[in-house]
Amino acid sequence: MKVAASVDLVIQNATIATASDVLPEQDIAIGGGKILLLGQNLTALFPGAGVLDAQGAYVVPGGVDSHVHLQQDNNPTGDTFETGTRSAVAGGTTTVLAFATQTRTDESLHPIVEDYHARAAGNCYCDYGFHLILTNPTPSILDEEMPVLVREGGISSVKLYMTYKPLRLRDRDILDVMESTRRLGMTTMIHAENAEMIEWMTDKLEARRLTAPYYHAVSRPNIAEDEATYRIISLAELADIPILIVHMSSKMAAAHVRRAQTRLLPVHAETCPQYLFFTSEKLRGEGFEGAKCVCSPALREDPLHLDAMWEGLVNGTFTTFSSDHAPSKFDHPIGKKAGTSTFTKIPNGLPGLETRMPSLFCHGVLTGRLSIQKFVELTSSNPAKLYGMGGSKGTIAPGHDADLVIWYPTQEQAANYKALSGRAASSMTPFALDNAMLHHDIDYTPFEGMEFANWPRYTILRGKVVWDRDNGGVLGSKGDGLFLKRGRSTLSKPRGVFVNELDLYAK
Amino acid sequence: MKVAASVDLVIQNATIATASDVLPEQDIAIGGGKILLLGQNLTALFPGAGVLDAQGAYVVPGGVDSHVHLQQDNNPTGDTFETGTRSAVAGGTTTVLAFATQTRTDESLHPIVEDYHARAAGNCYCDYGFHLILTNPTPSILDEEMPVLVREGGISSVKLYMTYKPLRLRDRDILDVMESTRRLGMTTMIHAENAEMIEWMTDKLEARRLTAPYYHAVSRPNIAEDEATYRIISLAELADIPILIVHMSSKMAAAHVRRAQTRLLPVHAETCPQYLFFTSEKLRGEGFEGAKCVCSPALREDPLHLDAMWEGLVNGTFTTFSSDHAPSKFDHPIGKKAGTSTFTKIPNGLPGLETRMPSLFCHGVLTGRLSIQKFVELTSSNPAKLYGMGGSKGTIAPGHDADLVIWYPTQEQAANYKALSGRAASSMTPFALDNAMLHHDIDYTPFEGMEFANWPRYTILRGKVVWDRDNGGVLGSKGDGLFLKRGRSTLSKPRGVFVNELDLYAK
Amino acid sequence: MKVAASVDLVIQNATIATASDVLPEQDIAIGGGKILLLGQNLTALFPGAGVLDAQGAYVVPGGVDSHVHLQQDNNPTGDTFETGTRSAVAGGTTTVLAFATQTRTDESLHPIVEDYHARAAGNCYCDYGFHLILTNPTPSILDEEMPVLVREGGISSVKLYMTYKPLRLRDRDILDVMESTRRLGMTTMIHAENAEMIEWMTDKLEARRLTAPYYHAVSRPNIAEDEATYRIISLAELADIPILIVHMSSKMAAAHVRRAQTRLLPVHAETCPQYLFFTSEKLRGEGFEGAKCVCSPALREDPLHLDAMWEGLVNGTFTTFSSDHAPSKFDHPIGKKAGTSTFTKIPNGLPGLETRMPSLFCHGVLTGRLSIQKFVELTSSNPAKLYGMGGSKGTIAPGHDADLVIWYPTQEQAANYKALSGRAASSMTPFALDNAMLHHDIDYTPFEGMEFANWPRYTILRGKVVWDRDNGGVLGSKGDGLFLKRGRSTLSKPRGVFVNELDLYAK
Amino acid sequence: MKVAASVDLVIQNATIATASDVLPEQDIAIGGGKILLLGQNLTALFPGAGVLDAQGAYVVPGGVDSHVHLQQDNNPTGDTFETGTRSAVAGGTTTVLAFATQTRTDESLHPIVEDYHARAAGNCYCDYGFHLILTNPTPSILDEEMPVLVREGGISSVKLYMTYKPLRLRDRDILDVMESTRRLGMTTMIHAENAEMIEWMTDKLEARRLTAPYYHAVSRPNIAEDEATYRIISLAELADIPILIVHMSSKMAAAHVRRAQTRLLPVHAETCPQYLFFTSEKLRGEGFEGAKCVCSPALREDPLHLDAMWEGLVNGTFTTFSSDHAPSKFDHPIGKKAGTSTFTKIPNGLPGLETRMPSLFCHGVLTGRLSIQKFVELTSSNPAKLYGMGGSKGTIAPGHDADLVIWYPTQEQAANYKALSGRAASSMTPFALDNAMLHHDIDYTPFEGMEFANWPRYTILRGKVVWDRDNGGVLGSKGDGLFLKRGRSTLSKPRGVFVNELDLYAK
Ligand SMILES: [Zn+2]
Ligand SMILES: [Zn+2]
Ligand SMILES: [Zn+2]
Ligand SMILES: [Zn+2]
Ligand SMILES: [Zn+2]
Ligand SMILES: [Zn+2]
Ligand SMILES: [Zn+2]
Ligand SMILES: [Zn+2]
Repeated sequence: MKVAASVDLVIQNATIATASDVLPEQDIAIGGGKILLLGQNLTALFPGAGVLDAQGAYVVPGGVDSHVHLQQDNNPTGDTFETGTRSAVAGGTTTVLAFATQTRTDESLHPIVEDYHARAAGNCYCDYGFHLILTNPTPSILDEEMPVLVREGGISSVKLYMTYKPLRLRDRDILDVMESTRRLGMTTMIHAENAEMIEWMTDKLEARRLTAPYYHAVSRPNIAEDEATYRIISLAELADIPILIVHMSSKMAAAHVRRAQTRLLPVHAETCPQYLFFTSEKLRGEGFEGAKCVCSPALREDPLHLDAMWEGLVNGTFTTFSSDHAPSKFDHPIGKKAGTSTFTKIPNGLPGLETRMPSLFCHGVLTGRLSIQKFVELTSSNPAKLYGMGGSKGTIAPGHDADLVIWYPTQEQAANYKALSGRAASSMTPFALDNAMLHHDIDYTPFEGMEFANWPRYTILRGKVVWDRDNGGVLGSKGDGLFLKRGRSTLSKPRGVFVNELDLYAK
Repeated sequence: MKVAASVDLVIQNATIATASDVLPEQDIAIGGGKILLLGQNLTALFPGAGVLDAQGAYVVPGGVDSHVHLQQDNNPTGDTFETGTRSAVAGGTTTVLAFATQTRTDESLHPIVEDYHARAAGNCYCDYGFHLILTNPTPSILDEEMPVLVREGGISSVKLYMTYKPLRLRDRDILDVMESTRRLGMTTMIHAENAEMIEWMTDKLEARRLTAPYYHAVSRPNIAEDEATYRIISLAELADIPILIVHMSSKMAAAHVRRAQTRLLPVHAETCPQYLFFTSEKLRGEGFEGAKCVCSPALREDPLHLDAMWEGLVNGTFTTFSSDHAPSKFDHPIGKKAGTSTFTKIPNGLPGLETRMPSLFCHGVLTGRLSIQKFVELTSSNPAKLYGMGGSKGTIAPGHDADLVIWYPTQEQAANYKALSGRAASSMTPFALDNAMLHHDIDYTPFEGMEFANWPRYTILRGKVVWDRDNGGVLGSKGDGLFLKRGRSTLSKPRGVFVNELDLYAK
Repeated sequence: MKVAASVDLVIQNATIATASDVLPEQDIAIGGGKILLLGQNLTALFPGAGVLDAQGAYVVPGGVDSHVHLQQDNNPTGDTFETGTRSAVAGGTTTVLAFATQTRTDESLHPIVEDYHARAAGNCYCDYGFHLILTNPTPSILDEEMPVLVREGGISSVKLYMTYKPLRLRDRDILDVMESTRRLGMTTMIHAENAEMIEWMTDKLEARRLTAPYYHAVSRPNIAEDEATYRIISLAELADIPILIVHMSSKMAAAHVRRAQTRLLPVHAETCPQYLFFTSEKLRGEGFEGAKCVCSPALREDPLHLDAMWEGLVNGTFTTFSSDHAPSKFDHPIGKKAGTSTFTKIPNGLPGLETRMPSLFCHGVLTGRLSIQKFVELTSSNPAKLYGMGGSKGTIAPGHDADLVIWYPTQEQAANYKALSGRAASSMTPFALDNAMLHHDIDYTPFEGMEFANWPRYTILRGKVVWDRDNGGVLGSKGDGLFLKRGRSTLSKPRGVFVNELDLYAK
Repeated sequence: MKVAASVDLVIQNATIATASDVLPEQDIAIGGGKILLLGQNLTALFPGAGVLDAQGAYVVPGGVDSHVHLQQDNNPTGDTFETGTRSAVAGGTTTVLAFATQTRTDESLHPIVEDYHARAAGNCYCDYGFHLILTNPTPSILDEEMPVLVREGGISSVKLYMTYKPLRLRDRDILDVMESTRRLGMTTMIHAENAEMIEWMTDKLEARRLTAPYYHAVSRPNIAEDEATYRIISLAELADIPILIVHMSSKMAAAHVRRAQTRLLPVHAETCPQYLFFTSEKLRGEGFEGAKCVCSPALREDPLHLDAMWEGLVNGTFTTFSSDHAPSKFDHPIGKKAGTSTFTKIPNGLPGLETRMPSLFCHGVLTGRLSIQKFVELTSSNPAKLYGMGGSKGTIAPGHDADLVIWYPTQEQAANYKALSGRAASSMTPFALDNAMLHHDIDYTPFEGMEFANWPRYTILRGKVVWDRDNGGVLGSKGDGLFLKRGRSTLSKPRGVFVNELDLYAK
């Protein structure tokens, strides 16, 4: 009996959560890195398999962090593929999408992609893929290289910047890229902030010597995000393509997305933990401490934006919840301290890969703000679907990769969750986070001191336990993680609806 | 091996669709009316079981029609539980929620519920439950009877009317009922139209002898729905309870729901096929034909409302998609023809139980307007969750009832759905609907002549094939369907958030 | 030369403000109680006339307070026509519209109107008119009496209540009244709060013995106003009539009005000083002090509502700014103290006739929040137009009544107002208000202690100086004020646009 | 008696309309080009003066057309100051604001302004002023020249373009200009369309050889206006300045303006006759006829935009109503026919100076869509205030320039306007417009064939009758019109409110 023979491991008595369902009393049979069967009493059926008892636990799909920056040249003190993915599995993430990034002067993407492959191959603790960052979208890149990268390279997404001098594209360039990504069925990600507003503000602040880290937030007010968000939605509507706006932080910008979604425009959005928990008050830290939280978009002044981000997670405005892990070391001359003279020289970004899943689980699911299904959807299912990994990642079903995270809420937490019956096979005590607990290679975490009521007990990558919180921690090895060839998004596609009722793309 | 022994049937090679996922190449092992296993190669594992090959087919959870009127005293020429549920299974619906309805003079609900049990027991082709219609919510009913009906009777939902003289409750009564349903964890359904606007309009029309069926629609303009929708959302926010607004038909009313959802109010809404496909033009039919489409809310004049209903299905405004099956025979003196002298005497309502699933599948899924997952969510998963059947109905997972519908899109249709690979095991030719094809006991269908590109090939109720389109049609028997004791909604609950920051319910 | 002969008074060197213009260096020639001429150098033209030098002053049209309660039976300790109108002129108001109010058992309006005429005639310091309060709108009243009252009685407005047990009309009654007021060209005023929400809340509070004055505000949350506002706009749209919603206090309700206005519905609204300056914190006063500020709608908890009322004044949401002067004495057993046992027995309402104009002038105009033109529009021009006094009240132009208010901003205040040139002919020092300064017959003012930077120097009623702040105070006499026969509104009228495209009123 | 002596003309029995009031039975005494007195029986007072009887007529302030293009280098076949202003007075306009336009290479504004003075001086039939068009806003221009032009030159407004290759400024440049205009108290006008969207569309159309005039509209869809409108509002909010968005044509863009106004942002907008009356259907004219209606923004496809423009006029979204007179001759090789090969070479713009006032009067006021006060506000008062002519233009009051337009509605039209009593002193018959009737120097009018029920009977410029429809037509002479030194806007100013609560301009 082929199936039986191949079952390596049965996870029994699980309460499975998917993006739509909470399914108690499930056994999961795993073999060859895949989920083979779901059912009951599977240990009886496959007596030879290993058994992991998940009584009293939620078993959810492995986290997919679709927005992390690893080993990029512009982050010299950041995490490598090794240290970044190590922290990923320790936080319940089994797939990351990092970036292969073009500089303005690069005339071909192929060497860049090869280079990033070289950086990652054999070094990763979890599976990984690449988005392309386009900063110089020449016709030969759009027309000749990208089709190859999509078809053969399994790279089906690009990220475009509306801000940052070395990266930003103008509206016309964006439209040209959109035309290509539409044709190729790629997912288009956008960093939406108005570059010129920010430059103007920055010049005014520097002219007045207002250069402390706090002024970084002043220089990029949410109106810059609101404007760029409205603009990119307009460009996408004109070009008739789906987009994902990354790392949203503003209530008004989120409202633009919501209105677009109401009209059925395929506009997706992402937010990140830092925009749920922190205001720009964090930037006022003593001395230069504020630099630890310098990121773009900036943390917002008014807590109403935090509420709006939570609201958007719950009401469906946000399709994905990512970390935007983009750290630099703090106490390093080319890390955050490069900006002691002025905020404009502080490298942007925060570490957050490892804390992403636990922070949302603890402060969202366990507090009752977010259903466990929504948690799964945001942290795993939707990024898997949006970025073309729908067949293997993002849910718990036969045929999918056996990427799983197992959480044991405490007795008290579980009280709210009837689905979890019986005595839990594991437990833990709430704790305050300390950077030393984390597995990245960064000398601080912005979440230092934050209370966590829970943390993944096990992380399983394609059937292998790579993280066992209570017995050994990181059990996986670098090289466990494989490159993912991705396909088209199954979440949305061009609508074939045009402004002015002329099919722009008809021949 | 217990599991193996109990497997009666394996559905193999299915493309399963749930509310979140499309899962190709799945086998489903069924035994004792339940889904036992999902996996691959299950026929090998259970060689003794029957096999149904679903190559090239979508297998979706059995339809849950959470809003049907059967054998009510006010619909004397309507369907019985027998004829209604017979048409249900023929259209892919395996669960219906009908009504046990109190009249103004009834002082106790218990005899009513018993009476409805007597009408249904042993007569149903599919599973069923009851909502209570409250028209005289006395303290003894709210405080003494309802707790019993919830706890012991498995009846966990009520419907309230804001219109119709014999049924309507005033705002104060509604608030009192809400207080009870909140305490009992019941789901509260609302028919939202402003009664007094309608009476005023009706009086004016009758005074001018504008009494043809068409004027029924004129007498209940969408502004009456818009107003009542805004009002009921306000009442629900004040009382802090979740509601479901039934049979919505108006763009503006749907916008009120959407805005409430944006703010995270637990406001749910339902629409029905008639509000997707028909305008009030239907009421202008020659002679008295228009009476066939007299229903409340009325079909709308402006097609923008149809578009808005489609939009609301896709963007998530609507939680459920039901038939509001509430037919009367047309050519019958106490059927529709009771209203030849004036529209006010035309019994309200349309037949639609059997056509609900196929109309949405054909005109929504196959046209690309709606994903198959959204179809499952609207027609099955959400009503199951909302009305407290989450553990057994509404999804395809081990432990759930084996209620399934199997659809074979044609080659051409399937072209859009990569998930369906291989040669389909069945096929069909598009056809125009003729009332004679249907299994209800009504002498017309408003969908007469509508094109259907597809229709359920099989309907399976708890493991039994009760509908085989191409071999015998209805194979089930009356009595196959069982009464469902339902629990609390797993879709939403009171938020504990109050206007004016005073907990109204604190002691 | 007829004109010259009849000129009694020339006001010279005025800076006239109308609803649209600020006109410096104007002389105003007055005769026979009317404005005869506007121009320059008029003292030279009419050497025999009296002269009042308005160098450095704003001269604005006399205030029209279109919402005051005087000598009503339900306010036994309130102001009489004498004391109320005395305070009016002392605060710059030369016209008041009070109420003639029907009780539920009154079968005819004629004796009521006669009674109110008897109360007012010969007792008023300023001009006055009556709105009808309808609580029992019988067909004979609507069809027979109201036409007479409009045509012959010069009473062209009604007020309807959606709340208060003894006053409230249900939606159907409101529609019937609207049909009449539409036919008669009357202006329809609405007190919009949901009665049943308030009753439900009140019952819950009283059951918990939460009976202090503060709970009055809790019992009438703004959601009750929001709902009723949306509902009355809907009823008015259905009936196709203009309305004015009185005394608005809620941000969301004001947003409903704004949206209706955007769509060109003739929806007008009014707010009052108490909703600009006070939150429900006022109700928490020590002991029973909070009762002084019990009014309906209640003062709001969140200051965002205050901001929204200011915003609505500036952006045009509000058509009129009235006092809703409806006082009861505080220290009186059938005044406010009637409610020591429970807030439900506290008579509703505040005094405010005298402070209305100065509070808005000081805190609106002098602070730069509001232009002087907008001040004139809100306090005089719009109420005059809306209530059918457009030919004689509300502006400064030849042919109009010479009702004027003269304000001398201080040097510093005037700095913002270039229009005021030269040395002011009068000045004053900012002061904190003390009830003893006021001319009403009430033992407190909610504005006690509020800073006023300015106050009318002169009030002129039909050419007669009735208030001279610095020389004698009230110079007018009771009997100076005359009854105003009013005509149709010149501000808006039915649009002839119907829902469902059927003219409801066609014959 | 000085006043009497100087009275040259009395207009008697007028019904004066201002932006706020309709004042019947007024006499207007005029002398030295100014209005000296308003009152009654003025002919008796000034027996020596000329008399013009306005019995039965509306007398309104002379039209102020604040957006006309005359004798610009980029319109070589357009109107000169002479022919343009001649047509102005024939259509009731007594003041025009034209443009002095900088090219990209101009390093100084002074010679440009001198040049435009030379073109206009002595050639104008009505008063005139200049806006500056800035295309190269160097620091020396912003910091040194503009202060002089404002202070000494009486030029207090600039226009910026967000589109057109030779004119457009980028966001950063716009912010820099805004900083200057804020400091100088100038009014900032914006042509808001997204340049890069339009270029992208244009390239796609030209690549497909879709070059007929109709494709001009396709190339500039309303989404380009919507986006730019939202963006410019954001830039203005950031910089804290008032703006006026010129020639709006899109419903969604107008909604952005309305929302900004709701929040009290000083955002003004303008629309033009072409956006009230025409859709892009006009561009489909036979042969090359469509080129006659090529303008930017383009005429819109969907008539809902026309309705929205009317709605915006009535609800206050639009501050001004101008012609955007920017004609080119049609049948001329460097006129419209320059674009026979492709729409990109068609000169943009339409003639409309002469038809602006009559088209709005006939289709707005006489149809009941617009009150006469609103007509005055939009066509005269608001542009006068916004552009710093508040003391002399835009209303009818002593001390103001005697710029007047006199209209005699027909008996039937007047029936709707009670204010107009008695027998009219003049009358006219409705007619269809023919270009030969107009006084511009253009070989077509887009309004050809449009029905006009009325037309100004007299236009009076500073006391002189310059247009007498029925006796001589244009009676004025070139040179009658004088240059207007303008001051600051009296309509709005910076609020001193900043995003992020940092005063950007503090030192
Ligand atoms: Zn970014
Ligand atoms: Zn990033
Ligand atoms: Zn119903
Ligand atoms: Zn129903
Ligand atoms: Zn009231
Ligand atoms: Zn009142
Ligand atoms: Zn322009
Ligand atoms: Zn222009």
